[in-house]
Amino acid sequence: MKINGQPTRTIHPAADGVAVEIIDQTRLPHALIWERMETLEDAAAAIKDMKVRGAPLIGAAAAYGVALALASDASDGRIDAAYKILLATRPTAVNLRWALDEMRRLLLATPVGERRSAAWKKAAAICDEDVALNSAIGDHGFAIIKALWDKRRAAGAQRVNILTHCNAGWLATVDWGTATAAVYKAHDAGIPLHVWVEETRPRNQGASLTARELNWHGVPHTVIADNAGGHLMQHGQVDVCIVGTDRTTAAGDVANKIGTYLKALAASDNGVPFYVAVPGPSIDWTITDGLKQIPIEERSADEVTFISGRTADGRIESVRLTPDGSPAANPAFDVTPARLVTGLITERGVCPASREGLLSLYPEHRAQAAQ
Amino acid sequence: MKINGQPTRTIHPAADGVAVEIIDQTRLPHALIWERMETLEDAAAAIKDMKVRGAPLIGAAAAYGVALALASDASDGRIDAAYKILLATRPTAVNLRWALDEMRRLLLATPVGERRSAAWKKAAAICDEDVALNSAIGDHGFAIIKALWDKRRAAGAQRVNILTHCNAGWLATVDWGTATAAVYKAHDAGIPLHVWVEETRPRNQGASLTARELNWHGVPHTVIADNAGGHLMQHGQVDVCIVGTDRTTAAGDVANKIGTYLKALAASDNGVPFYVAVPGPSIDWTITDGLKQIPIEERSADEVTFISGRTADGRIESVRLTPDGSPAANPAFDVTPARLVTGLITERGVCPASREGLLSLYPEHRAQAAQ
Repeated sequence: MKINGQPTRTIHPAADGVAVEIIDQTRLPHALIWERMETLEDAAAAIKDMKVRGAPLIGAAAAYGVALALASDASDGRIDAAYKILLATRPTAVNLRWALDEMRRLLLATPVGERRSAAWKKAAAICDEDVALNSAIGDHGFAIIKALWDKRRAAGAQRVNILTHCNAGWLATVDWGTATAAVYKAHDAGIPLHVWVEETRPRNQGASLTARELNWHGVPHTVIADNAGGHLMQHGQVDVCIVGTDRTTAAGDVANKIGTYLKALAASDNGVPFYVAVPGPSIDWTITDGLKQIPIEERSADEVTFISGRTADGRIESVRLTPDGSPAANPAFDVTPARLVTGLITERGVCPASREGLLSLYPEHRAQAAQ
Repeated sequence: MKINGQPTRTIHPAADGVAVEIIDQTRLPHALIWERMETLEDAAAAIKDMKVRGAPLIGAAAAYGVALALASDASDGRIDAAYKILLATRPTAVNLRWALDEMRRLLLATPVGERRSAAWKKAAAICDEDVALNSAIGDHGFAIIKALWDKRRAAGAQRVNILTHCNAGWLATVDWGTATAAVYKAHDAGIPLHVWVEETRPRNQGASLTARELNWHGVPHTVIADNAGGHLMQHGQVDVCIVGTDRTTAAGDVANKIGTYLKALAASDNGVPFYVAVPGPSIDWTITDGLKQIPIEERSADEVTFISGRTADGRIESVRLTPDGSPAANPAFDVTPARLVTGLITERGVCPASREGLLSLYPEHRAQAAQ
């Protein structure tokens, strides 16, 4: 999407062809810092430290991580080592494994001398595929927003109000975002819309990333505490919820940032449609019961007890929020049962959050899909 | 409750008899500062600036505010002026109006020369009544926790897990708290329990106040982001929710800190009992539809976009969380419909969240109670 009017991707090869450039997203929203990844270790650290985050962007960064790993050694052993190191960086994101599998499969079937260039080419292709995929999600999501706007406008409304949680945006992907793709397409098409951006404690990816990218692109939005979403739905101030997912089961259960489940409950209670933008690679066809089968990452308590922000004189400072001696817990994701999801917006169309719904769009997975 | 082992009330007359001492709760959890209120204006500012907060403590502080107002002028006009100034400090809390009505009724019926001492005596009586009332709520809530523990222990559990939102604790009252009264009574009686303390954005009263007072008193607890409560309920880690209320309608709808509604939805979805501790004075008998009839205070956007905490070198610093140019909204309360509430814990016992339930405990309000 645009920064200062310039169309920009979140990850791309550096001009010198030996490194990859990423935005250090831990510095957002207060500073826009482009960082060079030059080695496998740089890529692994960038993923683990969440300089890049969001399932699709993690996949793209991991693909480039493999390419960077082959700089001096393109052997089978090196490919396996890179695969293992990168896979261990984040346990929940299924795109990470998907991208690494794609890279390994291709490279092991490629003569050693051609692997380096093949890896760079494949990583670039994975990025292009992500852009095309998100654009397609955006087209299908656009149709939902357009239909809502036609209905709301007929009822006298001035705009469509969309609520989103966390950052399933441009910054979580190579371009467009997943949940935000429809927002950008609708905004660019002139539909008057406004986004309620949930701050998304404890890491505040809504307040720091979603607000940042909507702001850059010029989309009207308002940041709210996560606690406020239900109240807004009770009072008719949300027309549709659109969120992303880190992993969706073959039965349509949705793992996403902690707190998503609570908004799905509120949407259901208030008759607000609740959509999840699901890129095909985020579907885990091997499992059906999200609550029992998706391991939930428990992150550091420090993410709850400390927060960082910008001081009045422009420094970034971390401050403690809790009393000394009070422990904290920090589950990073939750699972929204399929029954609370109005529909899944995929690159192939919108479907019910169910096994049959998903298989209607991905029939090639019928044999593989868990029952 | 206890600080350093010493039983302590949150508000009390100063030893010199011309001022009232309060804890400046905006300085918590990092500093314990006792502050003197010497004038009506001090009391109004303390309530408005949330140095004292929580419906019962606001009522107590307002009562003392009237007493302080009469220092040099105990006329009817002065009483009315104090009433108006104090009533305007916080629009939602019904205890504020209740305490002011009590004070005004008594004082206008008292000879001018006796009003000053009558006001101090009445304010002290309002405090004592609050302590007795919360203690009674605690006794009734204790029975709920005791029954849960007997059941959980029989099933092999090591402890009872209680989730609470915001601070309906000792610090919100004169002593005991409302939602926490049962916790303290059960803990003091030796029932092994653990409290999930929701941080309660945007003002973080859970992380800064509830954690602080449980910590002082020695009750095991863990701070979580508000987003995590639903996930914990999905995984059987919450045995009961107990929250407070700023105002409950005659039909049992509960206005409480923003986000309470989302936890009630999650509790309902997971079969977790959801109780609200309701002091009699918090019941607004004149209304029945909480969603339509309770005005929700919209507080400053700065509470969402900035947060303050303690830096590594011990300073209290406010930091900005959101990008420049992104607006924020800050509704302070939401309404939990009675249908989601398992029971109301009052000083007279536990009842269903309904008109008939409340009238079974408060039959004297039958004629007055809105239909």
